[in-house]
Amino acid sequence: LDLCFPRIVNIEIINTGTELMLGRVLNTHQQWLCSQLADLGCAVTRQVAIADKADEIQNAVREGLSRADLVITTGGLGPTSDDITRDLIAQLLGKTLVHDESIAADIAKFFAIRKRVPPASVNVQAMVPEGAIVFPNANGTAPGLAMEVSPNPFRNDGKPSWLVMLPGPPRELRPMFSKQVSPLIQKTFTLKKFVCRSLKTTGLGESYVEQRIDEPLKPLVAQGLELGYCARVGEVDVRLAACGEEATKIVDAAEAIVQQAIGQYIFSNADESLESVIVRLLTERKQTLSIAESCTGGLIAHRITNVSGASAVLMAGLVTYSNEAKQRLLGVREETLKEFGAVSEQTAREMAEGARERNKTDYALAVTGIAGPTGGTPEKPVGTVFVALATPTQTFVDKNFNAYERETFKFTTSQQALDLLRRRGLSFAG
Amino acid sequence: LDLCFPRIVNIEIINTGTELMLGRVLNTHQQWLCSQLADLGCAVTRQVAIADKADEIQNAVREGLSRADLVITTGGLGPTSDDITRDLIAQLLGKTLVHDESIAADIAKFFAIRKRVPPASVNVQAMVPEGAIVFPNANGTAPGLAMEVSPNPFRNDGKPSWLVMLPGPPRELRPMFSKQVSPLIQKTFTLKKFVCRSLKTTGLGESYVEQRIDEPLKPLVAQGLELGYCARVGEVDVRLAACGEEATKIVDAAEAIVQQAIGQYIFSNADESLESVIVRLLTERKQTLSIAESCTGGLIAHRITNVSGASAVLMAGLVTYSNEAKQRLLGVREETLKEFGAVSEQTAREMAEGARERNKTDYALAVTGIAGPTGGTPEKPVGTVFVALATPTQTFVDKNFNAYERETFKFTTSQQALDLLRRRGLSFAG
Repeated sequence: LDLCFPRIVNIEIINTGTELMLGRVLNTHQQWLCSQLADLGCAVTRQVAIADKADEIQNAVREGLSRADLVITTGGLGPTSDDITRDLIAQLLGKTLVHDESIAADIAKFFAIRKRVPPASVNVQAMVPEGAIVFPNANGTAPGLAMEVSPNPFRNDGKPSWLVMLPGPPRELRPMFSKQVSPLIQKTFTLKKFVCRSLKTTGLGESYVEQRIDEPLKPLVAQGLELGYCARVGEVDVRLAACGEEATKIVDAAEAIVQQAIGQYIFSNADESLESVIVRLLTERKQTLSIAESCTGGLIAHRITNVSGASAVLMAGLVTYSNEAKQRLLGVREETLKEFGAVSEQTAREMAEGARERNKTDYALAVTGIAGPTGGTPEKPVGTVFVALATPTQTFVDKNFNAYERETFKFTTSQQALDLLRRRGLSFAG
Repeated sequence: LDLCFPRIVNIEIINTGTELMLGRVLNTHQQWLCSQLADLGCAVTRQVAIADKADEIQNAVREGLSRADLVITTGGLGPTSDDITRDLIAQLLGKTLVHDESIAADIAKFFAIRKRVPPASVNVQAMVPEGAIVFPNANGTAPGLAMEVSPNPFRNDGKPSWLVMLPGPPRELRPMFSKQVSPLIQKTFTLKKFVCRSLKTTGLGESYVEQRIDEPLKPLVAQGLELGYCARVGEVDVRLAACGEEATKIVDAAEAIVQQAIGQYIFSNADESLESVIVRLLTERKQTLSIAESCTGGLIAHRITNVSGASAVLMAGLVTYSNEAKQRLLGVREETLKEFGAVSEQTAREMAEGARERNKTDYALAVTGIAGPTGGTPEKPVGTVFVALATPTQTFVDKNFNAYERETFKFTTSQQALDLLRRRGLSFAG
């Protein structure tokens, strides 16, 4: 797989923080910065995380500057004793730190507004390597810094590199990147035109997706299409990217081929989640939904209600594990449960139809299955699940076999239920 | 901050995946593996992420092997054309790939159980570098691999290094690491005695936790206690670790001090989730629960049903967004809704009591609040939430203010509800 990115800008990200190396915090900077930079058409070629230790920080920065056009560091700019990045980088580059009056004034203002007395340690943040560009911090006290390393003593070809230092807290880093660093990158580097589109699919495994589209896309790959797959639980993204003047044409042609081959499995070409697509379609159509969940235990309702505006479409969700609750809350008949069992096509059907009728909704989804680890039988092993959709005109029931551990079982089943609604109820393909 | 870790094992983690460098997926492996390794007393000195590109993978592995005792790679072992890690590492180390019959049989079985025909590409996963240790994959088709690189051509001192390759999907990687890699590390490397215990707390912010225990723990820190905090949404872990012969004694003494200072906020000292603690206690006491959720939209039921055995304690969950559903499914009185509103102490109380009575459970939890972004008023701004618990003897209602974006709001509120049950219903501290 070759990245067709306009590799004029070759970027490395260095995340510093001992807490990262102990696994105490999740590194969200990597994903956030990479996606922001990808949208600019820049390729992050390497991301490195290291502890707040002097030699490791200097080694990582030295290595980054030996390879990359732009090195971005995060963290280590604050006032406490483990905030050492600024000093170490100045030392590495042989720069003196000078006191910046405007930063000192910003910091004093930050504390005055909050009616707090600044601790003495805070002033270290007003020290900047001579000649650096300063990014004022609207949401904290540590400013960001940028400088062109020119000539670059670490690069074999002596080509200059840029070095950008950002503060660690996400609420400080993100607006600083968007408002100050992104414009600097666009001004400093000449970026080629770049187009990137992800087609989100569900219902087909990664190898099957590849089997159906890899061959027909080969001529476009020869023309510069970059084709990538990203498999998550219950979803496979097909990523189509190209750069240069023909980029839009190539990506459009590729999407047409993928749509032709696996169109019914695509639920979004605009990076929407499946639950967002469903809430959006129901809202547009002024239709409503109720949900009856046995083995997914509330996850389908949880996913739907993660979408802002869900309250207008989700009338009720019922988690009915017991037979008693299935009868009382959904009107499943005792004879059905006795004759076919709680995990059966018939029970799923009555759950969906009961939820739809009692909650007076346009659609109702129902799931019943055996999550395991116990409860399986030879005819209905652990992983057996029935997913039902009641619509104004008919009821659909799918039988699936999801032999996964508990959380994956629940997510996969919730995905199948939401997708049944997308395909059979809303007749939608993205 | 200095790490007191026994740095006998010096570890680098290499995460491969073009999707990581494009910011399309969050790298959760870094935190998870780092925290698992920290619990073993091993220090991860560097974590690197790179795209699925031949030269970058080989460079990163070569550099890792030049520095570390153990290099762990994640990703790139699957069947598609961008899964190239296995081949590239074999090439780098000059190893031939050989066909492993037992892996091929496992893969065939994996598809047979699921009644699917394996695509031809799948068999590449049965190819392993000669002499490698194979970790069968209980949750997927790509096995993990391990080998000792000895002699190590990339290390100046020629010392051997270990190389472990793990599959990318978390549900495959995690059990494989815990059951197969962790024992290998403990067997292969001589680790100093290391004791690590996390006390999981909820209900107190990180700085308040620190304020109450930092000072009393100082004498033990002087004796070698490593004290760390990890704040997540709605939870703060206090991590107590020590190494050497006195480790257990030091950690026990530290736990006693923390229990004394903030015991009522601790729900586990054994790494249990709050929902697991609750399902375990209810099961032991043969008691039952029902849940009525408005603003959390099914998340509380989802969390409870993530715990195996939940079906014995959770009788019913009801997601009642609308006033109509609150009346019909929970028996909330129309006058209550009219006089006090859906988001009120009185409605929360009637939701909990109605759920408890109708579902005949020992306890019922109810939540009603304003998730936002719209729906707030001057008296009840976005973030206002009422959490109620009905017990056999009385009903408790807490008013909280969770002014966060949607998903954090839902999680924080679910945490407060579960914790109300722990404290007031089950009178339990971990």
